[in-house]
Amino acid sequence: MNWLDEGALYSSIGLFLREDLGRGDITAQSVLPRNARARGRFVAGETMIVAGLEAAEEVFVTLDPQQQLEAFASDGEEVEAGKVIARTSGFADVLLAGERVALNLLQHLSGVATMTRQFVRAVEGTDAKIADTRKTTPGLRMLEKYAVLLGGGINHRYGLDDGLCIKANHAGIAGGLAVAVKRARAAIGHVHMISVEVANQVEATEAIEAGANVLVVDGLDPSALMELVGAVRKLSTQVTIEVSGEVSGPITLENVRAYADAGPDLIRVDALTQSVKAMAIGFQIQAG
Amino acid sequence: MNWLDEGALYSSIGLFLREDLGRGDITAQSVLPRNARARGRFVAGETMIVAGLEAAEEVFVTLDPQQQLEAFASDGEEVEAGKVIARTSGFADVLLAGERVALNLLQHLSGVATMTRQFVRAVEGTDAKIADTRKTTPGLRMLEKYAVLLGGGINHRYGLDDGLCIKANHAGIAGGLAVAVKRARAAIGHVHMISVEVANQVEATEAIEAGANVLVVDGLDPSALMELVGAVRKLSTQVTIEVSGEVSGPITLENVRAYADAGPDLIRVDALTQSVKAMAIGFQIQAG
Amino acid sequence: MNWLDEGALYSSIGLFLREDLGRGDITAQSVLPRNARARGRFVAGETMIVAGLEAAEEVFVTLDPQQQLEAFASDGEEVEAGKVIARTSGFADVLLAGERVALNLLQHLSGVATMTRQFVRAVEGTDAKIADTRKTTPGLRMLEKYAVLLGGGINHRYGLDDGLCIKANHAGIAGGLAVAVKRARAAIGHVHMISVEVANQVEATEAIEAGANVLVVDGLDPSALMELVGAVRKLSTQVTIEVSGEVSGPITLENVRAYADAGPDLIRVDALTQSVKAMAIGFQIQAG
Amino acid sequence: MNWLDEGALYSSIGLFLREDLGRGDITAQSVLPRNARARGRFVAGETMIVAGLEAAEEVFVTLDPQQQLEAFASDGEEVEAGKVIARTSGFADVLLAGERVALNLLQHLSGVATMTRQFVRAVEGTDAKIADTRKTTPGLRMLEKYAVLLGGGINHRYGLDDGLCIKANHAGIAGGLAVAVKRARAAIGHVHMISVEVANQVEATEAIEAGANVLVVDGLDPSALMELVGAVRKLSTQVTIEVSGEVSGPITLENVRAYADAGPDLIRVDALTQSVKAMAIGFQIQAG
Amino acid sequence: MNWLDEGALYSSIGLFLREDLGRGDITAQSVLPRNARARGRFVAGETMIVAGLEAAEEVFVTLDPQQQLEAFASDGEEVEAGKVIARTSGFADVLLAGERVALNLLQHLSGVATMTRQFVRAVEGTDAKIADTRKTTPGLRMLEKYAVLLGGGINHRYGLDDGLCIKANHAGIAGGLAVAVKRARAAIGHVHMISVEVANQVEATEAIEAGANVLVVDGLDPSALMELVGAVRKLSTQVTIEVSGEVSGPITLENVRAYADAGPDLIRVDALTQSVKAMAIGFQIQAG
Amino acid sequence: MNWLDEGALYSSIGLFLREDLGRGDITAQSVLPRNARARGRFVAGETMIVAGLEAAEEVFVTLDPQQQLEAFASDGEEVEAGKVIARTSGFADVLLAGERVALNLLQHLSGVATMTRQFVRAVEGTDAKIADTRKTTPGLRMLEKYAVLLGGGINHRYGLDDGLCIKANHAGIAGGLAVAVKRARAAIGHVHMISVEVANQVEATEAIEAGANVLVVDGLDPSALMELVGAVRKLSTQVTIEVSGEVSGPITLENVRAYADAGPDLIRVDALTQSVKAMAIGFQIQAG
Repeated sequence: MNWLDEGALYSSIGLFLREDLGRGDITAQSVLPRNARARGRFVAGETMIVAGLEAAEEVFVTLDPQQQLEAFASDGEEVEAGKVIARTSGFADVLLAGERVALNLLQHLSGVATMTRQFVRAVEGTDAKIADTRKTTPGLRMLEKYAVLLGGGINHRYGLDDGLCIKANHAGIAGGLAVAVKRARAAIGHVHMISVEVANQVEATEAIEAGANVLVVDGLDPSALMELVGAVRKLSTQVTIEVSGEVSGPITLENVRAYADAGPDLIRVDALTQSVKAMAIGFQIQAG
Repeated sequence: MNWLDEGALYSSIGLFLREDLGRGDITAQSVLPRNARARGRFVAGETMIVAGLEAAEEVFVTLDPQQQLEAFASDGEEVEAGKVIARTSGFADVLLAGERVALNLLQHLSGVATMTRQFVRAVEGTDAKIADTRKTTPGLRMLEKYAVLLGGGINHRYGLDDGLCIKANHAGIAGGLAVAVKRARAAIGHVHMISVEVANQVEATEAIEAGANVLVVDGLDPSALMELVGAVRKLSTQVTIEVSGEVSGPITLENVRAYADAGPDLIRVDALTQSVKAMAIGFQIQAG
Repeated sequence: MNWLDEGALYSSIGLFLREDLGRGDITAQSVLPRNARARGRFVAGETMIVAGLEAAEEVFVTLDPQQQLEAFASDGEEVEAGKVIARTSGFADVLLAGERVALNLLQHLSGVATMTRQFVRAVEGTDAKIADTRKTTPGLRMLEKYAVLLGGGINHRYGLDDGLCIKANHAGIAGGLAVAVKRARAAIGHVHMISVEVANQVEATEAIEAGANVLVVDGLDPSALMELVGAVRKLSTQVTIEVSGEVSGPITLENVRAYADAGPDLIRVDALTQSVKAMAIGFQIQAG
Repeated sequence: MNWLDEGALYSSIGLFLREDLGRGDITAQSVLPRNARARGRFVAGETMIVAGLEAAEEVFVTLDPQQQLEAFASDGEEVEAGKVIARTSGFADVLLAGERVALNLLQHLSGVATMTRQFVRAVEGTDAKIADTRKTTPGLRMLEKYAVLLGGGINHRYGLDDGLCIKANHAGIAGGLAVAVKRARAAIGHVHMISVEVANQVEATEAIEAGANVLVVDGLDPSALMELVGAVRKLSTQVTIEVSGEVSGPITLENVRAYADAGPDLIRVDALTQSVKAMAIGFQIQAG
Repeated sequence: MNWLDEGALYSSIGLFLREDLGRGDITAQSVLPRNARARGRFVAGETMIVAGLEAAEEVFVTLDPQQQLEAFASDGEEVEAGKVIARTSGFADVLLAGERVALNLLQHLSGVATMTRQFVRAVEGTDAKIADTRKTTPGLRMLEKYAVLLGGGINHRYGLDDGLCIKANHAGIAGGLAVAVKRARAAIGHVHMISVEVANQVEATEAIEAGANVLVVDGLDPSALMELVGAVRKLSTQVTIEVSGEVSGPITLENVRAYADAGPDLIRVDALTQSVKAMAIGFQIQAG
Repeated sequence: MNWLDEGALYSSIGLFLREDLGRGDITAQSVLPRNARARGRFVAGETMIVAGLEAAEEVFVTLDPQQQLEAFASDGEEVEAGKVIARTSGFADVLLAGERVALNLLQHLSGVATMTRQFVRAVEGTDAKIADTRKTTPGLRMLEKYAVLLGGGINHRYGLDDGLCIKANHAGIAGGLAVAVKRARAAIGHVHMISVEVANQVEATEAIEAGANVLVVDGLDPSALMELVGAVRKLSTQVTIEVSGEVSGPITLENVRAYADAGPDLIRVDALTQSVKAMAIGFQIQAG
């Protein structure tokens, strides 16, 4: 899979290592024979979508440009418990210095990808795509959004600069939903899409008439949503309909299918990148 | 509560904001009237130990040095659902620009503190303290370790440079446990404690005789642990005994009490900072 | 005028000062009496749209947080030759240390804003908006785009991450225009607009049918453009039409009106930020 | 040509790329086949002195260390319209990601070098050298000064720390020209040259007697200048005479010869690096 | 010799070079023929323990990744006057650009290692180890501590975060020595050693009973120290005894043996890294 | 005393603090009561020229913007043993966190200033000024050069970019001394002084004829130097004569007067900033 910008993706690996290494690994340096060599294997402890192998390789390469990871699965692939995902060999102190950061990334990102895949499967057969949100772990957004792609989801806004999204807050402060949309269009021209959060058909109609490209529907149960979708589709074939669970309560693996069946184009799921469950992955090291 | 170093704690807040803001909040800037003002309130959505209020304030202060947070609870305090934790007022675009980063931090850190408190309560009445591990979220280690303190736990190593911990890997590559401990002592003098991972009484004895200060016991069930603790206490009253779940399987809220009752000084719990469940906290904004 | 993010806008001021100051202003420090004070006035040398006053203030504030600029015009205002735009007073060494950087910025940005205003006036009465391009001075993009806004233009993409724009190059490598648009839509969902560069009506139709939101027309003279605009408007009322001069030759103050009269929504003008003519502005310093 | 310090010269290339790439090139990544390859050629669109080829190569190398530029002209060489200046081949996404930054630099710096060459030619046969000023584009000073060298000019001060230059402002605040020069010499010893701005023969004599090494003459027309030069040469054979147009009005291609004929050692020309006209250079990309 | 973290050790080399190079070596670039090559040899001017050869190599590698140092001695080895320690060859401008920084480091660090070796030899045959302090040169701590190791000393705390050391100041503010130790133990658990500064036997006993692991004795002459050591050894076989000269007056080559004979485990010597005498080392360059 | 650029001077204070603080002062945070306050006094332990008080204040201000230093002497003043140089009061943890870095700077810089003053006094009554060299402590150059000024010396080159100095090495590689000087003048115009290292009268004459502004004489004893000075003065009244001890052996307090009496303008003394002897200064802290 291509990715936006490797620089953006891996630029913090050095910081993560410094966070863990501080002034250096005093155990390894005190205890290991000079130039001792070792081999390590990453082994899956449960079924998962692997994500973060390139990040893990970057961890070791940052410590020693010679170090490489031989991968037996690729980012985005599903593996079973017991599968050897990748192996590496080199100086023992490099393996030990990178172990924890590599694992912390791999386990976390594989958790994101695996959760995403579960949501994607839950809506299979419908027209709804699963998208992430800005509820990401501070400092890990680009890596988490990459893991969402690996899981089969699509990326929503990367940040506040990446598309307009007019919420009730904005509309309230600006003096109404239609005013807000029109101000936005005047400021931004036709370069960006304008999304508007709506809670019912009246607001949806107002937003479309004011020139919104995307409706973000929140606060409706699946049947009310289906009704709104039908009405909107009659008004315009160009408008995209997103569902968000901010007000209605979180979108879960249990309820996502019902929302998908209501006909939206996109469902935004906090759970992809919030309260991430780390996957069980081990790193087995031996001398040699 | 005091903390090691505010610089170390909050130095990444600027990075987190840039991650979310990119080139700026195009919605707010397009839609809001110039100099519009607003008020916001952080409201707890469930029972939790609050953590991260100072981090949240730092988010707003970074955006506008004038902005302040009026807190109605302090970091480390337990609050119920519905409690207004803090409020702030100022320029609407500042509130909207800081909202997501502040919430992402507050929800995540409160999750760490709340989980820690649960473990601390589970071992109440025993001599065991609950400690964290290096299984933290890359880039958030110091903030997460701070949240562990707020929850009543204690901090284990901040990084690989912060104390020696000889694991089976090290001993294997170095040529045996006793050799490894002696090399460590020679290299480091009496300045640092030396911890050694042991799996049974034979290893425990070998480690103590070689000069270890701390035993990290892993792979024993509670009753085997109790036996080992008894034996070790007879050998030395100075040695500290830690329990880790790396091999035996994770320490959970269900099994932690049994381990604590076996008499160790410290129990290291991955779950404090791994697979963190974000707490439900809302940020309610209104004009004015 | 609000702006996206002051951080992004002024983050390089420190670098600019270091570039000019190096290890310090050896003339001022050798020659001036300790704590000598001075007053300075920025004076326009020709008619211009002022841009960069806040940047100039930031230059002095970076050197001395106490220093302030009293402005007699605001960014975006038109002034005549002889107008005192702003004045400041403080330590003489601070004024002398900031003078050159402040002037370099002010003269350059006012040049951008003034040129933009001329283009905007040239198309007055038509529906066409004047937009900038990515042909900006390396390191000054955000400041130059801000100056374009001050001149009455609108900002096109801030960077390669800010909206999709499929050019002939992309289409060629991807295997055709329609293929490229469809791949883009699949990858990006409905979150971003998709622009496509087209050279004639056949390509325009193909792009619209493949799902493009914006057509960037290049290589047509005004009358051919008018014909294409008419045809496109019949096909779709939702599609935005931009004109670019990459192939047809640069859009100039002489020819821009003819293009505007042909009915596009937007005209992209390299000249706003390329080959910028610095405005004549002086900084008069006197003791006291 | 050697250059002072490549680090100083190219240290901002990464910043320039990040300015344009942001979170990554979403068009290329959405549209191009994985690992697609392409070839690109830089082609001159008019007669010019080429400057910035090494900077352009640095742009691509920063994106991909494997990428190289095969140059058919060297920095400082004069080329005609149609000349293929350089070509490169590699991954299509690397070529597209670097294209705009490389062109923006190449066009701007070639503009500086070409303008410099025109001034140098205009004074051919006289003893006057053409020098640049500190009126450079913020953030590009070292690159622009390098382009001045390529055009045949010489570099004046790199910054305020690089040589003393006593202007009327300094003399005024210090209490007179002679006082200022003497203070400067006392502070700085004999390590640096001392330049003094003078407006007439009286000041020139005063400056020389106080120990100035360089006179910067401003505000005289060519014939008054010639008279002053004659008088100064009689007073001292060691003093260098520079001409500046700050007060007299800008030095232009039209009037520079007349100034040069008056006999100064150096003429400082704002126009080399201010209001730079970008040269027409294209980058032609094709698959393969 | 292994070292904690090469990153931490050499991370400032780039800063040191920029400090000396500024905008570049104008002499070399003005005077040397393009691509001139040269050879250089580092030659010892007196007997010394060499330290900093890897740092010196890093200096040249930073300037030119191709440049290498061929060493004829290794860090930590003792050499005589006249010994060629290392040689290198490459571009003349690279050798000249790196010369001063490489020498400044090599001479200073060899000074640290040589002084350390003298102290180590002075206590040979006793049980006392020689340790450094935090009285290091700002910015050079890790390099100086590395040189101490090369000289045969051991490293005390790397910083304030690296172990607890309760001084009279702390005890005074906390409300007494025993209170301070107990607070420390409660805060830190058994993860770190606790050192306590004591001035006599009463304090020593109080500290041990409160749970100190290390006593730092200051203010006693050798015979009073010997008495205290004897008394402490009877109280506990686990407690480490350090000697410091803060109050008693500096530990010198003259008095260190008397302190060592008194039986402490460790003697902390300011002089290892304070008032460092640079070793005489030359760098002989010739063309070719 | 003014100084070139406070930014350049104090920009590394943050790094120095991080070097010592790491993740924070665990002793203070574990032991001190929350918000405990303290007072501290810097007391001279011997006669010295004080240097670094502003640097010391900057250390505390970096930790807490409220913290201030009340100085009872100013940088550059001579004080006796027992003199209270400055005092400060504030949070106890701030005082303890800044103590070591502040002292390390103050002791080192006062050592530089004091040594400089001794050399300056040794040449009193002659025309020779005492100047520093580039043999400074890596990372501390600007602070050390500032201390030299405080001691009454003058600053020689701040770096390789700050003036041309043609040494035997350069002349050798360039093909002779006169060639080198002429190349230099051609490249650099009349903007910078050109210094040339000469070993005898023949070279001195050659250098002057080629256009050198400064002769750096090395390898002559005082009487040979006096002869050369006389000869040079006859050839030119404009040329500056410096003495350096690189070849002849170090300039010391013992031999400097003899060199000064020989009549040079400047004597360059390595010992000002190399092998710096730290001055005895204490920091007395008490609660309250």
